[in-house]
Amino acid sequence: MFKPVFAGVLATGWLFSVAAAQTPAPLEAEIEATAKSLMDQARSDEIGLAFVEDLTTEVGQRLAGSEAEQRARAWSVAELTELGFDNVRVEPFEIPFWSRKSESVSVLTPSPQMLVATALGGSAATPLEGVAGQVVRFESLSELQAAPISQVDGKIVFIDEKTIKTMDGSGYGMGVRKRSGCAQAASDKGALACLIRSVGTQPHRMPHTGIMARDGAEGAGPVAAISGPDADQLSRLLERGAVTVAVNIQTEIKTNAPSGNVIAEVAGTDLADEIVLIGCHLDSWDLGTGALDDGAGCGIVVGAARLIADLPEPPRRTIRVVLYGAEEVGLFGATAYARQHGDNLDKHVLAAESDFGAGPIWRFQTRFGEAALPYARTLQTLLAPQGVTRGDNRAFGGPDIGILARSGVPVVTPGQNGIDYFDYHHTPDDTFDKIDATEFRQNVAVYAAFTYVAAQTGWDFRKQAEPETTGTE
Amino acid sequence: MFKPVFAGVLATGWLFSVAAAQTPAPLEAEIEATAKSLMDQARSDEIGLAFVEDLTTEVGQRLAGSEAEQRARAWSVAELTELGFDNVRVEPFEIPFWSRKSESVSVLTPSPQMLVATALGGSAATPLEGVAGQVVRFESLSELQAAPISQVDGKIVFIDEKTIKTMDGSGYGMGVRKRSGCAQAASDKGALACLIRSVGTQPHRMPHTGIMARDGAEGAGPVAAISGPDADQLSRLLERGAVTVAVNIQTEIKTNAPSGNVIAEVAGTDLADEIVLIGCHLDSWDLGTGALDDGAGCGIVVGAARLIADLPEPPRRTIRVVLYGAEEVGLFGATAYARQHGDNLDKHVLAAESDFGAGPIWRFQTRFGEAALPYARTLQTLLAPQGVTRGDNRAFGGPDIGILARSGVPVVTPGQNGIDYFDYHHTPDDTFDKIDATEFRQNVAVYAAFTYVAAQTGWDFRKQAEPETTGTE
Repeated sequence: MFKPVFAGVLATGWLFSVAAAQTPAPLEAEIEATAKSLMDQARSDEIGLAFVEDLTTEVGQRLAGSEAEQRARAWSVAELTELGFDNVRVEPFEIPFWSRKSESVSVLTPSPQMLVATALGGSAATPLEGVAGQVVRFESLSELQAAPISQVDGKIVFIDEKTIKTMDGSGYGMGVRKRSGCAQAASDKGALACLIRSVGTQPHRMPHTGIMARDGAEGAGPVAAISGPDADQLSRLLERGAVTVAVNIQTEIKTNAPSGNVIAEVAGTDLADEIVLIGCHLDSWDLGTGALDDGAGCGIVVGAARLIADLPEPPRRTIRVVLYGAEEVGLFGATAYARQHGDNLDKHVLAAESDFGAGPIWRFQTRFGEAALPYARTLQTLLAPQGVTRGDNRAFGGPDIGILARSGVPVVTPGQNGIDYFDYHHTPDDTFDKIDATEFRQNVAVYAAFTYVAAQTGWDFRKQAEPETTGTE
Repeated sequence: MFKPVFAGVLATGWLFSVAAAQTPAPLEAEIEATAKSLMDQARSDEIGLAFVEDLTTEVGQRLAGSEAEQRARAWSVAELTELGFDNVRVEPFEIPFWSRKSESVSVLTPSPQMLVATALGGSAATPLEGVAGQVVRFESLSELQAAPISQVDGKIVFIDEKTIKTMDGSGYGMGVRKRSGCAQAASDKGALACLIRSVGTQPHRMPHTGIMARDGAEGAGPVAAISGPDADQLSRLLERGAVTVAVNIQTEIKTNAPSGNVIAEVAGTDLADEIVLIGCHLDSWDLGTGALDDGAGCGIVVGAARLIADLPEPPRRTIRVVLYGAEEVGLFGATAYARQHGDNLDKHVLAAESDFGAGPIWRFQTRFGEAALPYARTLQTLLAPQGVTRGDNRAFGGPDIGILARSGVPVVTPGQNGIDYFDYHHTPDDTFDKIDATEFRQNVAVYAAFTYVAAQTGWDFRKQAEPETTGTE
């Protein structure tokens, strides 16, 4: 039954390629020994962990475009300079700025009670006196989109869809779709406001914010998330009869607010113009202190780069640490970087971003040229003792790195176990105490190892396969 | 070495009494069979669980003296009447009323950031513009009390003591001491305000409220609790240098606000004037919906009493269910009950209160007359298959029952496993979803069994031992 398929595979030479790709490229013994030594040192890392502890304590939340994000850039420049990095600088850009001034959601009838809520980033404001209306509940954004106008007009929409917890964060996409789409879909049908069940996965009364639309949604109405237990409460009330709620969201909006990317390097030697980029984002949402999202990522890449900088000899290529600005509100830092460095992207030999908390890395995905897959195998073999399995060659790279990947820069995704990530992410609970030091340090180990190997070997991760000249038959 | 002590014990006849007390009193086979059948039925209880679900959904929070507590009484009277209880009524009384209007605590220097905070019940207000000052940290209330005035005067006090998690809630007393004493101790030394680390035990940014002084503290200043992670943050900032914070608390105070105890009965037969009282409290703090504290307790006692009321024959004694009002703000309902029923306390043959969440009962303590201890053994033997161990004869009875116990009413404390209770208690997170139905139903089973046996047997739990006439030597 399976024979024809198998024969077909053989005929394309696919099995041969796979077999070749499964063979690791040889790694110089000295480089391997140094990489292993870096991983050992990372297991007692203090610098990376102190970076996130100090950033989240001494600066706190770092909303994109705010005075606090500006303080975070100044703090980072001082800290990275103090740590001895090369070429520490800010590459500034401007963004539209949104912030919450106040928000409240409360049940008016049948039983007055407050609901724990947060305005979504970019939400329109209500009139000063707020809006009030009957609630109409939908199981999903699609159900709202399919509803007749008569069901929604003059009401307050409530989308009660739950986010599914997964190790790889794949449940989040559905949540983002609801978060992005509700205000517009509700407004289009005449709703007064939209409420969504928080995209977060924790069972606590922690509302989960996040951007609702990158460029603001022209004509979209106010939108807030209510916590999981509050969504349960609203659903129970709706099971018992009609419910009216009041929503009041007041916001502050500015154009041309300052943001910027903070850059620090470990300057290379004979291949100094070639760049291995490891990044994170410096901005955070305003509710927590951005410890997991993404202070941890910054601590991991800074900690890893610092370990490499402490080697007796710098690596051949330049390691560039980028702390992106204004990621949360629409990847403005990533866009600015690609614009400012657009002429030089071919010199970016590898890029990666840590932006999924501080859980242990369990998988190592790559996006390399086909002929460079043996390098992936080498890296994966090197990382296996850290508890890391092989991933596929379809790495995304990370939110700020995606734009580089789409421009042909080879990327890796060291996949973290994010099963609990959305319990904290974008909520008031994203604070330093949620970071497990041992798990964090495993991340530093993995980043230090692959970054060093990429910087020291001179490997070409873009390398494509030669056209096949011989078949397997 | 131990002989003199042992001989002394023998001389008092103590060992003899203990041995006698260890022997269960015989229980009529029919009563035992009915009690066991009630426990079986309780394991699929719907009425008790629906009571707490409906109360917390259809009323929500029930702050003592508020319009919401009044709604809760009306709701309870309607519900208990609908459930077919006898003599459903409210016994009204008045209380001083305190509620929060607004509160905020934020770091001003070195790095502006909000802290998650809640005013403690009874806190003084700040001036409208708030107060601001340098923070002085203490490890405990005792340390504050021992500090010189010069260390505290003009500052904002921060007591950073952690509550210890225990199964029996014994760590809470220390927390209450800090909560009750900080405002007065701080004011006495010229402090502008007091902040305490939340008495709650959860790792989330959930501030924990609670009464700071029963009758208000004359001359005591404003006092708020900050969540555990915020206390960590403030401590980290203080390790790095001086910190100033702003505190703004606005409150509403009324005298003579309405409260009341809601009472419902299962009327007895030939011993109808004798009362087995099982209670809970109806009021809650304002942050959550009072599901664990104490909607669950009300659901447990209502569910248990309802099972007994459904028996073919009512028990001989009257079962009185009391939903106390205004417990949280100073046991006003308990005091009112004792006053209104003071002439009749000798007819209260047994009392118990469920007010420690919905965790499974693991221990059954009593406070019986010495000669009634065999009844304790009978009840404990009956409850053992529910996973309940024997407790001592020093039961407290519960917050609202303590006053009855001190007046000589025999009490029992079915001790719940409260290891997680203070994770939710008095926080926004005290909501219905935190109740485990299986554990809740075990509580209903235990309450139904001991309440039925107490009401049906006619046992005298006050019975004192006869004066010893023979020694053991």
